[in-house]
Amino acid sequence: MTIVRHEMGPRFSEMTVTKIGDSNLIILSGQVAENTSLGIEGQTREILRFVDRLLGHVGANKTHIISARIYLASVGDYAAMNSVWDEWVPRGHTPARSTIGAKLINPDYKIEMEITAVANHVDHDHHHHDDEDHCVAVDSDNLNAKK
Amino acid sequence: MTIVRHEMGPRFSEMTVTKIGDSNLIILSGQVAENTSLGIEGQTREILRFVDRLLGHVGANKTHIISARIYLASVGDYAAMNSVWDEWVPRGHTPARSTIGAKLINPDYKIEMEITAVANHVDHDHHHHDDEDHCVAVDSDNLNAKK
Amino acid sequence: MTIVRHEMGPRFSEMTVTKIGDSNLIILSGQVAENTSLGIEGQTREILRFVDRLLGHVGANKTHIISARIYLASVGDYAAMNSVWDEWVPRGHTPARSTIGAKLINPDYKIEMEITAVANHVDHDHHHHDDEDHCVAVDSDNLNAKK
Repeated sequence: MTIVRHEMGPRFSEMTVTKIGDSNLIILSGQVAENTSLGIEGQTREILRFVDRLLGHVGANKTHIISARIYLASVGDYAAMNSVWDEWVPRGHTPARSTIGAKLINPDYKIEMEITAVANHVDHDHHHHDDEDHCVAVDSDNLNAKK
Repeated sequence: MTIVRHEMGPRFSEMTVTKIGDSNLIILSGQVAENTSLGIEGQTREILRFVDRLLGHVGANKTHIISARIYLASVGDYAAMNSVWDEWVPRGHTPARSTIGAKLINPDYKIEMEITAVANHVDHDHHHHDDEDHCVAVDSDNLNAKK
Repeated sequence: MTIVRHEMGPRFSEMTVTKIGDSNLIILSGQVAENTSLGIEGQTREILRFVDRLLGHVGANKTHIISARIYLASVGDYAAMNSVWDEWVPRGHTPARSTIGAKLINPDYKIEMEITAVANHVDHDHHHHDDEDHCVAVDSDNLNAKK
């Protein structure tokens, strides 16, 4: 068992990747939009790009997602969120999912998303510099913002 | 590592089963009542039947549950929910659990439940037709309703 | 695969430890303060002590945590919660994390925390008496309170 931590900050890591047997359990921090002036569709789209990017850091992708949890600041945004989700989620590889309403940390956040994935082979060198125990991202200028 | 998706719809799957080493990690989508005219006890009972049914699809059962997360639309329903839970949960096999209040997607939902289980041997042919990558349920007429 | 349940009550267990391949997946029940007269810093500190204690029961520690989910009764407590978290969380080993606002079961709870960890070797005899299937804590006088 090894735990590799990606975009690790002093408060949390954006992603942990834990080798268990021949598999890697990939857990993402709750993803929120950086451009909080966006509406629900825009924030959802941005978050899904972050998910793609983070999974891509270890050579994984959205077909490896086994579970998604979606928090909506307003449950009235359910249909609009789904309109973006449905375009993005890969047919034949849809994860288990829950969506609930919750108060988010930043009042401008309309949505937050948690993702769990599993991949056989991960490549921690795909995009990042690694050391033995963790990864430090080169593009994580926004680490440890509201989360 | 293989991911098998049960009752897979275009938006989400009701259950993902991921083989990791000699074990299978079973994750259920957030379960909600179909008969939303029921009170908290009735909705809880219905959800627990769904949990039993989904786990049964791979030959697993409630003794394999390692974690449960319960969302209540009204935290005042805590005792009533527990009265049903306590009858159902198997002595000697109680999971880790959290219960929080949350706004649910459908205003008639009183409770939503997320379940994670692990089983050594799963039988994907137990109730379903399978192909190489996923399962398609024969009884999933209600797929991708509010979730 | 074996599931060991620690501080098991009739409703839930404080911790489940599931051996998967050569690793152990450790899931804690949502941790809440026992002394609910404490403020956000005090409740957070107490919860983190519970986390340390539970992980210690199997010889694990906070460097093994891969994921944390934090529920705040008031999102305005975010900074105060973080002031305690930041002192506690081990540099170089920060987990994936999400923080959301939620209504908690007891109106005096200010925070609830869910923790997932993975450890190679666990020692179920470290602090507890075990039998084949589960652990029963000697110090769990508070089992199955509000959770």
